[in-house]
Amino acid sequence: MDAFFLFNNDITDKNFYYVSGLVDGVFDNCGVLCERDGKMIIFTTTLEEEAARSAEGYAEIVTYKNKQTRDENLTRVLSAYKKIGIPYHSISYAFYLHLLDLFAATEWIDTTTAFKKARMIKSPEEIHKIRKACEIVDSVAESVPSFLREGMTELELIAEIDFRMRQRGASGPSFRTIAAFGKNSSKPHYSGGDVPLKRGDVVLLDFGAEYAGYCSDITRTYLTGDPAGDPEEELFELYSAVLGMQDAATSMIRAGTNAKQLEDEIRTRIDESERYRGRFIHSLGHSIGLDVHDGSYPDADFHDEFSENMVLTVEPGLYIPGEYGIRIEDDIVVGRDGCTLLTMASKEPVIHEIQ
Amino acid sequence: MDAFFLFNNDITDKNFYYVSGLVDGVFDNCGVLCERDGKMIIFTTTLEEEAARSAEGYAEIVTYKNKQTRDENLTRVLSAYKKIGIPYHSISYAFYLHLLDLFAATEWIDTTTAFKKARMIKSPEEIHKIRKACEIVDSVAESVPSFLREGMTELELIAEIDFRMRQRGASGPSFRTIAAFGKNSSKPHYSGGDVPLKRGDVVLLDFGAEYAGYCSDITRTYLTGDPAGDPEEELFELYSAVLGMQDAATSMIRAGTNAKQLEDEIRTRIDESERYRGRFIHSLGHSIGLDVHDGSYPDADFHDEFSENMVLTVEPGLYIPGEYGIRIEDDIVVGRDGCTLLTMASKEPVIHEIQ
Repeated sequence: MDAFFLFNNDITDKNFYYVSGLVDGVFDNCGVLCERDGKMIIFTTTLEEEAARSAEGYAEIVTYKNKQTRDENLTRVLSAYKKIGIPYHSISYAFYLHLLDLFAATEWIDTTTAFKKARMIKSPEEIHKIRKACEIVDSVAESVPSFLREGMTELELIAEIDFRMRQRGASGPSFRTIAAFGKNSSKPHYSGGDVPLKRGDVVLLDFGAEYAGYCSDITRTYLTGDPAGDPEEELFELYSAVLGMQDAATSMIRAGTNAKQLEDEIRTRIDESERYRGRFIHSLGHSIGLDVHDGSYPDADFHDEFSENMVLTVEPGLYIPGEYGIRIEDDIVVGRDGCTLLTMASKEPVIHEIQ
Repeated sequence: MDAFFLFNNDITDKNFYYVSGLVDGVFDNCGVLCERDGKMIIFTTTLEEEAARSAEGYAEIVTYKNKQTRDENLTRVLSAYKKIGIPYHSISYAFYLHLLDLFAATEWIDTTTAFKKARMIKSPEEIHKIRKACEIVDSVAESVPSFLREGMTELELIAEIDFRMRQRGASGPSFRTIAAFGKNSSKPHYSGGDVPLKRGDVVLLDFGAEYAGYCSDITRTYLTGDPAGDPEEELFELYSAVLGMQDAATSMIRAGTNAKQLEDEIRTRIDESERYRGRFIHSLGHSIGLDVHDGSYPDADFHDEFSENMVLTVEPGLYIPGEYGIRIEDDIVVGRDGCTLLTMASKEPVIHEIQ
């Protein structure tokens, strides 16, 4: 292709931030074009112009006031290229039709996979930002036992977690924080409601921080002692099973490990237990970066092995519908001979002292 | 068309929640199909199955484990229809191509505008939920003077606002809360950073609450007195000009008012002032609902007048680049003879007592 083009129209495309280096704005209805030699042109509304000007050192800035002048500018610049790359998965069908209208003679090429591949391998600067985002969630996770109270609702707990992430330097949560008490923990994507904490409840917390545009993602599950004392034995066993799955996975991940084989192995092992068979109902992890589901996870479709400097979550979970679920999630960087944990908050499951 | 179809693939489509009534989940890789007679089929991953089951009373639930069984189910069900509606603006070009692959003979029709039109007019139940979301931001806005402190950073203020929204019953912020101090307020979409508050700074706060899936959106701008006392006279004048724009707009909005004429009139008036000419650089408002930019704002493209039970923001602003900006935003319901304010927090601009 002669150039690639990204535009935030119906969809806000994180690739725009990845390429433009702009983070301090929304950039709705803005775009970027890069030539083969790296020459960059940023298209911006007058609304975002001041924010876009921070790229002036390395990009040409084109400004417009409305849809008509936007299209005039796009036409003027993009007409110079015969083959232009656009990401088929992050432009709407409607915007694609609009491009066809503007550029009848242009050949379009899908850049989705190229961006996924590029974004899967993190630069040292990106890893530094993710590490910072991980330090924030670690610190918040460590503080959970200090503020968990009987009668506190899931929503209050979420408020407290988000507040603490911001206090520690996060620009915000990297996704909607999940707090699930008791049987709500059996739904992997339950988000939280007006449900008060009772002694004996399982407490599942899944949250992430955004720092300088980059995301972390951690899950901790706590077993709260009922008034009589310890959690039930079967909860301990379930917790140990999940922790065992995670330990097994992290001990096998290194550059060259086949991702699907690893996941199959973890799943096969758990399915050997009659009690837990079919209870691991989601995937083992995902890539993190500018998005909390970033780039792509290694799979058979285009790259089936872990590679150095991939940053991933490892998050096994087991769910007993209507009763409880346990998930443990950490973030890792893949290295040549193993992986490095980026989140290190305690995995001691029991909180005895709930006020 | 024989049916319409919505699917959360590359894009999460709020129309899915609007139609399915499901709010308690993420529903990634889930969809819904409706026949002309209202018969509804919900397609769900096993991951979201438990959450989807809450629609069992009024919809058939189809469950799948992976992409292959998803496509088998879609093929089985959707093949029965010749013409199917899909929203061109909220499906990716890639997913459209995938549908073409699965259904070579189907005729597709764009439902974007139909959904926008339907979602523009709110039901009493929807207005009730938005009103609740508005009460939350009102209460938080009223409390701002009580916790604004010299030296507090924009991010700390954002954390405090989000925490207070959750305390008051919000399931979360409806968009990323904006706090802009001093010259940052001159950038309409600046989001907030590690910038401490100084006496004399303009403080612009733009935030919204989500309640039962529905959004509110409010902006208040405060003038903090410098150590010597009052804010500068020209800040007062700017504030009055913006408030005057808002008063003029709300006094003219009723069912039948032409939206573009109204905005032109507000803009023409402000452009008569040499000082403020060209300083109102965004639109007057937007529709709110399930999205914070919901449905569509009345415009010449398909419906140019305000109608009863539209819920909109009215948010004029004036921005002096590099110095400061002032924006005031309230939410309204359009009525037959006027509009009703849903947000009512004080617009007294000066906070003298910063601790």
